[in-house]
Amino acid sequence: MKDFQDAYGHQLYDYYEGRSDGLEIVERDDGFIQANFGPKTYLSEYKDWSKHEKAGIRYAKGRILDIGCGAGRHALYLQNRGHRVLGVDVSPLALKVARTRGLKETRTLSISELTPKLGMFDTILMLGNNFGLFANPRQARSLLRRFLKITNPHAVIIAESLDVYQTKDPDHLRYHQFNKKRGRMAGQVHIRVRYKNYSSPWFDYLLVSQKEMREIVEGTSWKIVRFISNRSPRKPRSAAVYIAIFQRQF
Amino acid sequence: MKDFQDAYGHQLYDYYEGRSDGLEIVERDDGFIQANFGPKTYLSEYKDWSKHEKAGIRYAKGRILDIGCGAGRHALYLQNRGHRVLGVDVSPLALKVARTRGLKETRTLSISELTPKLGMFDTILMLGNNFGLFANPRQARSLLRRFLKITNPHAVIIAESLDVYQTKDPDHLRYHQFNKKRGRMAGQVHIRVRYKNYSSPWFDYLLVSQKEMREIVEGTSWKIVRFISNRSPRKPRSAAVYIAIFQRQF
Repeated sequence: MKDFQDAYGHQLYDYYEGRSDGLEIVERDDGFIQANFGPKTYLSEYKDWSKHEKAGIRYAKGRILDIGCGAGRHALYLQNRGHRVLGVDVSPLALKVARTRGLKETRTLSISELTPKLGMFDTILMLGNNFGLFANPRQARSLLRRFLKITNPHAVIIAESLDVYQTKDPDHLRYHQFNKKRGRMAGQVHIRVRYKNYSSPWFDYLLVSQKEMREIVEGTSWKIVRFISNRSPRKPRSAAVYIAIFQRQF
Repeated sequence: MKDFQDAYGHQLYDYYEGRSDGLEIVERDDGFIQANFGPKTYLSEYKDWSKHEKAGIRYAKGRILDIGCGAGRHALYLQNRGHRVLGVDVSPLALKVARTRGLKETRTLSISELTPKLGMFDTILMLGNNFGLFANPRQARSLLRRFLKITNPHAVIIAESLDVYQTKDPDHLRYHQFNKKRGRMAGQVHIRVRYKNYSSPWFDYLLVSQKEMREIVEGTSWKIVRFISNRSPRKPRSAAVYIAIFQRQF
């Protein structure tokens, strides 16, 4: 990733350095654009995490690979609890923030560049909706099979996603239809991050229902053993987010 | 303005109705994009205004024309103080918010559509950087002359702008050079507002130094009688904003 493409990293770095308001802009390929408070979340401490996030991370064990670790909020928490953690991300500047914050092991790598040279892991972390990094169902299955080569027999994957169907927003419902018409999953969003003059390449990010996730994982030697939902009567908006625990079958 | 172009109005309306975080996205024609807390400002009450804004609005008198009135924060304040105020804006939804909040007189009009049919005014308000609505120096002079036809002899204009030269931001300095090379003023920004699937047409917004404003106003039968700066040692970032009071020469 060239520096002018590292919109994600620059927004994070500037916010970390106190030089911005920490507003993230995400643009979708139907023209939909929205700002959010992402960077604040990406730097949040354990005490500020949601209930389901705290519940999900309890499944982490042994040596940990955090895919799309960003500023390292999950990786640092686990490192502080004594785990050996490798954080990988495509954003060099995000990793710079993670290292500055104390993360010892980082590598600038995408989810499709993981090899046994990195060693073997007991846990693969894909929190912060990072199941989305699988991009599409075909690649999800292919990478889940490859994960067998970098994980120990009792390994787990802790992956978060968003059930896109739990919405009544006409903009999103229209996008689901748009996606289906072009042969994609409803929640296979094609997006990019923009910040100042930086713009990430367009990329696919896969958001799925629990049923869809089960179908994708079927036959990959991984088994979903638990879903942890973020349902809360007080936060109707975040009800659609959930974490899945995958157990390696051996 | 078609509804799909009313990005400004929709973001304002949704925030007013409590349906959004109130983040505004502005895109510049060099690719620079930034989110801000605009809608909160657009709905702010007098007590939350900056010092120079409170000082500037004290020059308002008689019947008032608020150009680009938005959600009507200035218009409503003056109406509540007993003035007759007409708010004009190109955004139908912004005017809907202004009317819902109590603004009695509104018209969906741009700055170049103002005619004596609207009646005569004692004050023209162009706060919130709305000197920018003049778009370019030539149109500024032409419209200032036309304002003679809709104002009474003792009329004033209260206009706010931003001295773009008071920055060290390389992104902005580069844009100034880009503008000069194509024969535009450094602060003649070409921008659009984006919100969800809404996108305003691209438009010019003219940001000038006090010296540049003097040069533009020269020979138009309006005279700048006072500049009110927002200089404050506590807010170095907002130091570049200022209000000018124009007195009609007769």
